[in-house]
Amino acid sequence: MGEAVDWKIKFPDLGVSVRLPKNVSGQKYRIERTAAGLFARHGFGSVGVADLCAATDMGRGALYYHIKSKESVLFDIAAGYMRTLNAGASQILEAGVEPDVAIRALSRLFMHVMFEDRNEMTVCFRELHSCSAEKQTEIRALHRDYQKFWEKAIQRGVDSGRFRGISSVQLKGLLGMYFYSFLWVNPFQSKSADEIADEFAEIVLSALSPRGTH
Amino acid sequence: MGEAVDWKIKFPDLGVSVRLPKNVSGQKYRIERTAAGLFARHGFGSVGVADLCAATDMGRGALYYHIKSKESVLFDIAAGYMRTLNAGASQILEAGVEPDVAIRALSRLFMHVMFEDRNEMTVCFRELHSCSAEKQTEIRALHRDYQKFWEKAIQRGVDSGRFRGISSVQLKGLLGMYFYSFLWVNPFQSKSADEIADEFAEIVLSALSPRGTH
Repeated sequence: MGEAVDWKIKFPDLGVSVRLPKNVSGQKYRIERTAAGLFARHGFGSVGVADLCAATDMGRGALYYHIKSKESVLFDIAAGYMRTLNAGASQILEAGVEPDVAIRALSRLFMHVMFEDRNEMTVCFRELHSCSAEKQTEIRALHRDYQKFWEKAIQRGVDSGRFRGISSVQLKGLLGMYFYSFLWVNPFQSKSADEIADEFAEIVLSALSPRGTH
Repeated sequence: MGEAVDWKIKFPDLGVSVRLPKNVSGQKYRIERTAAGLFARHGFGSVGVADLCAATDMGRGALYYHIKSKESVLFDIAAGYMRTLNAGASQILEAGVEPDVAIRALSRLFMHVMFEDRNEMTVCFRELHSCSAEKQTEIRALHRDYQKFWEKAIQRGVDSGRFRGISSVQLKGLLGMYFYSFLWVNPFQSKSADEIADEFAEIVLSALSPRGTH
């Protein structure tokens, strides 16, 4: 059994930092990371438990000591980065920074998690339909929670007269901009997570800017 | 063999209309539509040629008269709506309307095609990795072409001083907002294609608006 390890992301120029729990046992985490890579590369349906055993260098008994089933690994992968995002977003909202700073920090947080968990996002996006209806509902609830953090940050700006409101369709559109990015952002070639996040935040802040003041 | 049928979309308030060729034989088109529905519901890997035969009420011989393979159907599905988008985008650019009108029309076009070809988009995003590397490259080229129409519309606005430029990362982000929307837009419950398109266009135009004038 491993220990809980914190993943700390700092945005010194924004005056915000978040501490993200990676609260899984070392072995379970290693299995999930390995599975995410295999599922992303070959597809969930094409990867068997035997492949998971081979890639993790574990016997079937040892593997099943840590996981319930291949499906449960898929769910844990899809839920994992959403819980990370929600934990971070919650801290950003609690930090009490100005609304535009909160937007920038939410943007940075997303990109850091995306750079870190790109395989996991690929798998979730592509294979969520392989989860049971019940598990899909759980994942959707995590996405709804995530959206609420953005709504809250936006509402604070609207309340203070800094932002104009946007519709729910527009917010979902903007979040789609983030979630879709795992498909084209190349963490090894393109700009840094912070740079991309700041360019995205600029789009969000333009949309939120009261006409005539941005 | 069916005949080529045009699909005409008008945006009377924008003074633009596009004529989109659906240039496939009746049977081939019917097979593709059926396959897109099956692949979207069950996944490409879980649908066999026998399922395609059953769903189209065709024998194997008749089916293979119209298609080369299950993989070729997948490619045609993914390529089809991108060709439709590119044909429409090309006409919008040729219409010579004001840059902001072109952006609104591109936005409307996308939503109309998305509402019409939602299964196709689902399949393309989830299953493109099941196409050969060569076919994936072809699909990516169609996406690059599509992006170029947006770049051209934006550049016209920049040249005329109506728009400020945005970075390539920002444009990809905005296009991601569109492409991701098939995941959450419900054509049967929510706003109309035009309404969603106009709300998205507003975001794009905010991002393009020179500071202090929007």
